Amino acid sequence: MSGQDDSGKSGSGRINRQVLLKTRPDGIPEAGHFEIVESPMPLLAEGRVLVRNIYLTAEPAMRGWVNAVANYAEPVPLGAVMRGPAVARVEASRDAGFRAGDYVTGAFGWQDYAVVSPQSIQRKVSDSGLPLSAHLGVLGLNGLTAYFALLEVGQPKAGETVVVSTAAGSVGATVGQIANIRGCRTVGIAGGPEKARMCREEFGYAAAIDYKAGGLDDALARACPEGVDVYFDNTAGPISDAVMKHIRVGARIVNCGTASVASWDPIPMGPRVERQLLVKRARMQGFLATDHAARYPEAMAALTEWVKSGAIRYREDILEGIEHMPGAIAGLYRGENMGKRIIRIAPEKI
Amino acid sequence: MSGQDDSGKSGSGRINRQVLLKTRPDGIPEAGHFEIVESPMPLLAEGRVLVRNIYLTAEPAMRGWVNAVANYAEPVPLGAVMRGPAVARVEASRDAGFRAGDYVTGAFGWQDYAVVSPQSIQRKVSDSGLPLSAHLGVLGLNGLTAYFALLEVGQPKAGETVVVSTAAGSVGATVGQIANIRGCRTVGIAGGPEKARMCREEFGYAAAIDYKAGGLDDALARACPEGVDVYFDNTAGPISDAVMKHIRVGARIVNCGTASVASWDPIPMGPRVERQLLVKRARMQGFLATDHAARYPEAMAALTEWVKSGAIRYREDILEGIEHMPGAIAGLYRGENMGKRIIRIAPEKI
Repeated sequence: MSGQDDSGKSGSGRINRQVLLKTRPDGIPEAGHFEIVESPMPLLAEGRVLVRNIYLTAEPAMRGWVNAVANYAEPVPLGAVMRGPAVARVEASRDAGFRAGDYVTGAFGWQDYAVVSPQSIQRKVSDSGLPLSAHLGVLGLNGLTAYFALLEVGQPKAGETVVVSTAAGSVGATVGQIANIRGCRTVGIAGGPEKARMCREEFGYAAAIDYKAGGLDDALARACPEGVDVYFDNTAGPISDAVMKHIRVGARIVNCGTASVASWDPIPMGPRVERQLLVKRARMQGFLATDHAARYPEAMAALTEWVKSGAIRYREDILEGIEHMPGAIAGLYRGENMGKRIIRIAPEKI
Repeated sequence: MSGQDDSGKSGSGRINRQVLLKTRPDGIPEAGHFEIVESPMPLLAEGRVLVRNIYLTAEPAMRGWVNAVANYAEPVPLGAVMRGPAVARVEASRDAGFRAGDYVTGAFGWQDYAVVSPQSIQRKVSDSGLPLSAHLGVLGLNGLTAYFALLEVGQPKAGETVVVSTAAGSVGATVGQIANIRGCRTVGIAGGPEKARMCREEFGYAAAIDYKAGGLDDALARACPEGVDVYFDNTAGPISDAVMKHIRVGARIVNCGTASVASWDPIPMGPRVERQLLVKRARMQGFLATDHAARYPEAMAALTEWVKSGAIRYREDILEGIEHMPGAIAGLYRGENMGKRIIRIAPEKI
């Protein structure tokens, strides 16, 4: 249907490198749980679109996608291509809505090429005016997560103290900056002096705490003299336990991720939260961005505006080559990346 | 001011038995933490009211009131009369709003007589048409707690499954019955076959589980085949941990009490809730009835109507004599009472 349909190239001898889930991890997926194979090019059928992935990424949530037990997403089958979002270029199209050269986003998986239905393409990003890679971070699920987690579940009010864990991460840094936009006082918790510096100097936190330096409890008391009104939690471990001691009456705790827990089978033990929730009439609430899909356009418009105006800054940490994919999730949990972890597997332009 | 002012009797040789806090417990207050003393009658001053307590009660929350650390209430000072709600008769009044013979409620403490300000009297109950003792339970803070905990925090919808811990207790039984009134399917958890029977036969639960019989997890699975939408928690222990495994997407957990935890110093460990809250997009929220004081009249009107119509039933377990007070809190935690624990320390009529 597209005037530039070049689907004839499919199957013309090019190969499709794919990252398959080889074995199922108990906890954090490591490089050895995946394997890279070379497969034939997928065939483009009528009504479908051939995309070439340019940018892939690793997300902490992917740990849950490869676990044996379904939680909020069906597990990736053993032997299947690893699920994951991508920014891609349309190579060929047999659907009228897309044409070769369009840039699109979607869960195209960890591979060079995919033939997909038009419905599985999230959106065209050709004319956003912002870097393509941003659509995997601040203008992707990370930004949407930050937007709804903070504003819908955290419900911050101007003047309140908002504490953010994984504060220099793609989601956390966006949470902190949206909280600043809303007139809150923001305190970021991150690992190491460089990330703490990024929190203060790049992402505008009023205070930043390096939890690896020790003395987290005292540092929180100094940074939050009036206590914590909103806590964005991406850790579910000792950092959360420390913040819980400092919550104020009416506090809202947003459970967005569990980065500090290696395995949930069996469920690890931690200090019980019931008494503190009761005494402080506080709330802990779990959150998934995809529950808010109907409002993505509103959020995306706000995020795009904030990024364009400079009110939200973001940082990327880009690696080159699909060979980085198998170890990328484990790298996140080791805190290796300084900014959103993105892997470029093809050039932006042909 | 009252035509029947008999304040001249004060100091006329009668004595005032008082239950004082003698030592501060680490966990559950036992009989030995209190002492009963005989004090002179308090003197009635202008503008104040002399009341004689008829009914006293013990509440699980009193454990927190005698702890050294202020939580939501200032600790009862050592050597002071134990704080507690009462139904009393006005013996003499030097305030125009009250007269001898009025029945009133208020936090008059564990003692025979108190001279109080009119502001500290919660309300007159002379003409309620319901038993005086009910004003310490279903028509007192227990009923108000049940009303706001379930309806404000739990937000049950018709057809949802509501699970109630301490389901045969004064608060729990009221929660279950309000949930039934709202068209929910109710499952009660209580200790022992007699309390489970009460849940089914007296309080209208669709199903009741005796957690002391073992197999709680299986019993919950059978009783809640579609999972748990609202969980009213008064325990903060293994019962809660079991219920958490069965919550549905969007569940609301109301933290109202922590009956199964003997001491919060240090904070006891339990299975972390973050992952389940996240996967199920569920909410845990602490609750205190007193935050809703502005809406007490609305709640009291509804509760009174429901009790009068028989839509809410309640059970009392009444002991005679102030000598039962020192051990009354510990008795609650041992689950001794079959119904609201009330202690009568004077006859209703002179």
